[in-house]
Amino acid sequence: MRRAATGVAAVALMGAALAAPIASAKTRDFWVAAVPVTWNMVPNQHDAILGESYAPALTVLPTVVYRRYSPHWRRPEFNGAPGAGNQDLIPGPLLRARVGDRIRVHFKNLDRFFKRPHSMHFHGVHYRPSSDGAYVPGFSGRDGNVKPGRALTYRLTAGADSAGVWPYHDHSPSMHESIEGGMYGMLSILGRHERAPDVELEVVLTQMGQFQTIDGRAFVGNTPVFTALVGQTVQWDVMAMGSEHHTFHVHGHRWLTPDGTPRDTQTVGPAETYRIRWREEAPGTWLYHCHVEDHMMAGMIGIYQVRRRR
Amino acid sequence: MRRAATGVAAVALMGAALAAPIASAKTRDFWVAAVPVTWNMVPNQHDAILGESYAPALTVLPTVVYRRYSPHWRRPEFNGAPGAGNQDLIPGPLLRARVGDRIRVHFKNLDRFFKRPHSMHFHGVHYRPSSDGAYVPGFSGRDGNVKPGRALTYRLTAGADSAGVWPYHDHSPSMHESIEGGMYGMLSILGRHERAPDVELEVVLTQMGQFQTIDGRAFVGNTPVFTALVGQTVQWDVMAMGSEHHTFHVHGHRWLTPDGTPRDTQTVGPAETYRIRWREEAPGTWLYHCHVEDHMMAGMIGIYQVRRRR
Amino acid sequence: MRRAATGVAAVALMGAALAAPIASAKTRDFWVAAVPVTWNMVPNQHDAILGESYAPALTVLPTVVYRRYSPHWRRPEFNGAPGAGNQDLIPGPLLRARVGDRIRVHFKNLDRFFKRPHSMHFHGVHYRPSSDGAYVPGFSGRDGNVKPGRALTYRLTAGADSAGVWPYHDHSPSMHESIEGGMYGMLSILGRHERAPDVELEVVLTQMGQFQTIDGRAFVGNTPVFTALVGQTVQWDVMAMGSEHHTFHVHGHRWLTPDGTPRDTQTVGPAETYRIRWREEAPGTWLYHCHVEDHMMAGMIGIYQVRRRR
Repeated sequence: MRRAATGVAAVALMGAALAAPIASAKTRDFWVAAVPVTWNMVPNQHDAILGESYAPALTVLPTVVYRRYSPHWRRPEFNGAPGAGNQDLIPGPLLRARVGDRIRVHFKNLDRFFKRPHSMHFHGVHYRPSSDGAYVPGFSGRDGNVKPGRALTYRLTAGADSAGVWPYHDHSPSMHESIEGGMYGMLSILGRHERAPDVELEVVLTQMGQFQTIDGRAFVGNTPVFTALVGQTVQWDVMAMGSEHHTFHVHGHRWLTPDGTPRDTQTVGPAETYRIRWREEAPGTWLYHCHVEDHMMAGMIGIYQVRRRR
Repeated sequence: MRRAATGVAAVALMGAALAAPIASAKTRDFWVAAVPVTWNMVPNQHDAILGESYAPALTVLPTVVYRRYSPHWRRPEFNGAPGAGNQDLIPGPLLRARVGDRIRVHFKNLDRFFKRPHSMHFHGVHYRPSSDGAYVPGFSGRDGNVKPGRALTYRLTAGADSAGVWPYHDHSPSMHESIEGGMYGMLSILGRHERAPDVELEVVLTQMGQFQTIDGRAFVGNTPVFTALVGQTVQWDVMAMGSEHHTFHVHGHRWLTPDGTPRDTQTVGPAETYRIRWREEAPGTWLYHCHVEDHMMAGMIGIYQVRRRR
Repeated sequence: MRRAATGVAAVALMGAALAAPIASAKTRDFWVAAVPVTWNMVPNQHDAILGESYAPALTVLPTVVYRRYSPHWRRPEFNGAPGAGNQDLIPGPLLRARVGDRIRVHFKNLDRFFKRPHSMHFHGVHYRPSSDGAYVPGFSGRDGNVKPGRALTYRLTAGADSAGVWPYHDHSPSMHESIEGGMYGMLSILGRHERAPDVELEVVLTQMGQFQTIDGRAFVGNTPVFTALVGQTVQWDVMAMGSEHHTFHVHGHRWLTPDGTPRDTQTVGPAETYRIRWREEAPGTWLYHCHVEDHMMAGMIGIYQVRRRR
């Protein structure tokens, strides 16, 4: 396959390009803490489409999430970017960078409730094993096992092959409970000179308790209400975590995959990610959802509203 | 990613192209009704490969399907295209169009048996929210909730990004039962000047009752027997519905994905679709099946016969 | 879709190219037998990450595997290629060829334990129906049903559309038990003039008993320890068998898909395959695993060690 061989050559070139200094590259610092919270997956206790109600006992759980802090831990901040829907805390902060940047993520484990170890494992970026964040007895260091009250800085580099959106998540000994509880987020890395989209929408598809959630919420009225204006460039950052495969679908819209194929429904499995872009042309109130029917029925569905500019 | 950025530009261009009048574009009208039928998933009551028998009580069910009608509801017609295998009624009529066409689907709910509401929701094409066909309390109109005895016309446009094959299906309040019962079909949209294949074969992979079905049938002898001649251009329209992922495989054949990779087995999740094309060169009797082993054992397998021209 | 149409033309051209004699094409002969063995999925009886132990009663099973023999059945040999990890017997022998080659696989059923019929069904290559290896009552011949003590030669050709990695597996009446027991392997076909990678690593993801295995083993310490040197071209041959979808992930590395998209996690469903290549630049001890969390917890995880050249 000529293509695959070209791929190897391209990766090698990228390595060389990375080694050379890039004039405009930055060092980007982020402060992220693991904090205990009480989370309600269905705040209105209601499935509007099937007309069913759910008692808080089924929808509320104590958990730990990633939370954004201002530089040097001055104060907690909202995770979401402006216009990123009505969600916060799940997923964790959207970490934005550009190809060529060095990234330092200052992590602190503030889990005083469960008192579990935590970590951050990043996909898509370059790093030394000491910033891997995964726990393997006999091999891994502190990066994969940050005890409550301790801190650690992960050092990453965005290579030419890091453009795109990527997961980060807990990979410590408490990984299993943490991921079901919402300890995941995304890196969003633009090309060196790539234009940022006007609107960036994060969609994380996971099972949580008995529900199928988007950004930790289930059912229309609880899941994010995303908004955009006609004429804007809209980017959807789509990711799955957990143990199931999903098919992400948006009504009344289509996108092109990197090979040029039009799609409006696309598979995403655990820790896979893709970004979808279009120039918005379709005013109205639309559904977005996982097209796995059982998942849609269990809450994995939301509203996307497109208005005309005034 | 340069590619993705190009994608956005391409979509924008397509929008512009759509707005301009296309000389040869047509308006295509289809008449489709929801009709109750008695359906047998295993008409010969037999799994030829494992040698097991199934009583009609396990294989026959009352259900509702989409049925093609001649213009202005004169008479019911076969759903299948000539040469499209031995199937009819499931999937619903194959709706063919070309990029640039306007499409009007005249829908009538003739479900006098269950007396449920129904609808049609179309993937891949452009339309206003009033032709979306999805039921959302407080947002959607009649298009998502066509009551028994009522009719509605869905107005669609095939854009430049609509080339390919796409699902349509019930998205009304009875969506869940309808999809399990066979209320789905495909749009097949060719490019403005694209040559049609000689043979077009529809493969819809779904669970139905305790069986894994292709076009609503289970096991060799019941599933479609597809046929082609050496030298013909053969197109497979592959789609899944329901809640499971599948891997479609054809014996003794390979195809190229849009990025140029040879494949002979390819994942398809709920509401995903792809079309496969090859020039037929391999005479013989071949198997096609889902390669998820449990699905193959539960009936998702059939025969493809290729003969030499006389 | 212009691309798809081009695909058909390309396939037609490949057919023509195949018909013409290729000066350097070879006939490659392989000898492979189905042999009964006692297999331990967890030889150290231990999950190092969760710290759990498993009794041999849970991890050891009698089964049948494909085993490589030297020409004309002189003696049994190791299945694995040099440097292919610490595994043997599962998967079956890696069968290497180049586009244009004729391949003869001499198969013998030595299953004296279960006394079941077996076969070999090959993906990705060209062959007549008599070398298909699949059992279909009324259609198939001896190729799909090789009785214990009998032998059969499968005759295959690597076409231009056969470049890549492909599964082979039992497709006889005992297919179901055989695949769960490890009767699968891979064809690895290079382009006519393509440079071979320095290191080729086989990863087969399957369920086996209650475990999720890689090459028939579960948990770090049992699964393959793959190794490479900085500067080497590394190829991963990734495949799934059975009934589940997986997402293959390697820590600290990324690859480009054929359409140029960077990935570090990629879905693979039953009988799907892909090859990943990179020039190795990241010394250290890394994890590779299925990112479906339940699968990772049930054993589908291993170690990849990269050292600097001395």
